[in-house]
Amino acid sequence: MDVDAVVFDVFGTMTDWRSSVAAELAAVGERAGLHADWAAVADGWRRRYRPVLGRVLAGELPWQPLDALHRTMLDEALPEHGLGALGETERGELVRAWHRLRAWDDAPRGLELLHDSRLVTATLSNGGVGLLTRLAKRSGLRFDCVLSAELVRSYKPDPRVYLMAAELLEVEPGRLLMTACHPDDLEGAAKAGLRTAFVPRPLEWGPDSPPAAPPANVDLVADDLVALARTLTS
Amino acid sequence: MDVDAVVFDVFGTMTDWRSSVAAELAAVGERAGLHADWAAVADGWRRRYRPVLGRVLAGELPWQPLDALHRTMLDEALPEHGLGALGETERGELVRAWHRLRAWDDAPRGLELLHDSRLVTATLSNGGVGLLTRLAKRSGLRFDCVLSAELVRSYKPDPRVYLMAAELLEVEPGRLLMTACHPDDLEGAAKAGLRTAFVPRPLEWGPDSPPAAPPANVDLVADDLVALARTLTS
Repeated sequence: MDVDAVVFDVFGTMTDWRSSVAAELAAVGERAGLHADWAAVADGWRRRYRPVLGRVLAGELPWQPLDALHRTMLDEALPEHGLGALGETERGELVRAWHRLRAWDDAPRGLELLHDSRLVTATLSNGGVGLLTRLAKRSGLRFDCVLSAELVRSYKPDPRVYLMAAELLEVEPGRLLMTACHPDDLEGAAKAGLRTAFVPRPLEWGPDSPPAAPPANVDLVADDLVALARTLTS
Repeated sequence: MDVDAVVFDVFGTMTDWRSSVAAELAAVGERAGLHADWAAVADGWRRRYRPVLGRVLAGELPWQPLDALHRTMLDEALPEHGLGALGETERGELVRAWHRLRAWDDAPRGLELLHDSRLVTATLSNGGVGLLTRLAKRSGLRFDCVLSAELVRSYKPDPRVYLMAAELLEVEPGRLLMTACHPDDLEGAAKAGLRTAFVPRPLEWGPDSPPAAPPANVDLVADDLVALARTLTS
């Protein structure tokens, strides 16, 4: 595929948010003497994500850094799991769990292969620049550049986010490849004129969740990040 | 020194623009059958930099990507060295020479040492995000994040540039260290509330140029990037 740069979704595509966040919920909750199905709490927290982004994109809520949205979503999710007793300090700590997500096993190696090629790589996430920088450093994800929807104070799938990446990286949208495990992200990228690659992450929502299917007009499907890198550099 | 992140000037501090640009001028010029003191041409080109940035910051010129300013400066410099015959293609290629600068020998190692520490590193340059990303990838400079004055459509030493870096990296200005070999850059950073580190680059303008002195109130002086990294991580 004839592209000059590759941008990546981060939550889900590069990192296993579910097991990372569930582990931090368990640690913080049990220290406070609370018990719950921590993976279900993580799912309940994350399930609020798309609706709340939709409200911001519809103009019902002002744009806010993702940390602030995560806090609102957490405050809503906790009481549903009998965890309303968790205090301010614990809630702040839990919001920071999204800065410390673990990478999927194949992701660091795939990025290293791309780093050694002529292709430029960058994040393209709704997480903020600071969050993404720390997450990438900590989890061994070597991106050549850190780009965030924060730079245009919006969120994916707003086309402005994808076009900002093309403009800042100085590539034509048609020579920029968006990589994600979420069909709606790839559909947004395609509408903005980018090329798209789907990488399935069947464990994103745990072993019992139904797998996501690639969108109809996706340009490329790869099993994981190493397979993607090999295809793009072969 | 108690800081959480370190940002770096790039042209001069991390890279040897003079020998890199002189070599590209020589290659392009001699292919066109022209001869000149190529290091002097590089100096003549670069000497136009601060005055032209000053005109933009004073509101006399609109903000433009650095590539566009480099082109204007080149068009002014070439005739002074009898090189007015260089064509469009060659001039475009020469502007791209600033995307391919060589790193000073100590810079990649210093950044690797910092990458392995808790400190977050980023560029903070008047070069654009695309330029900096390609330059860093090509020259082996491993920054954790790429930040550019382009993100606020201004140039250093405008305080907005330094404060943008603190905001995006989510650190207090007083816990962010600006590293540069140029006193005016460090003075601008200090005025914005950042901490400052001076790294001398006595060869920036060639072996016969007078060395720059650190500004009066600099927080730290280090011989090179490895020494800086050791001081910050010890």
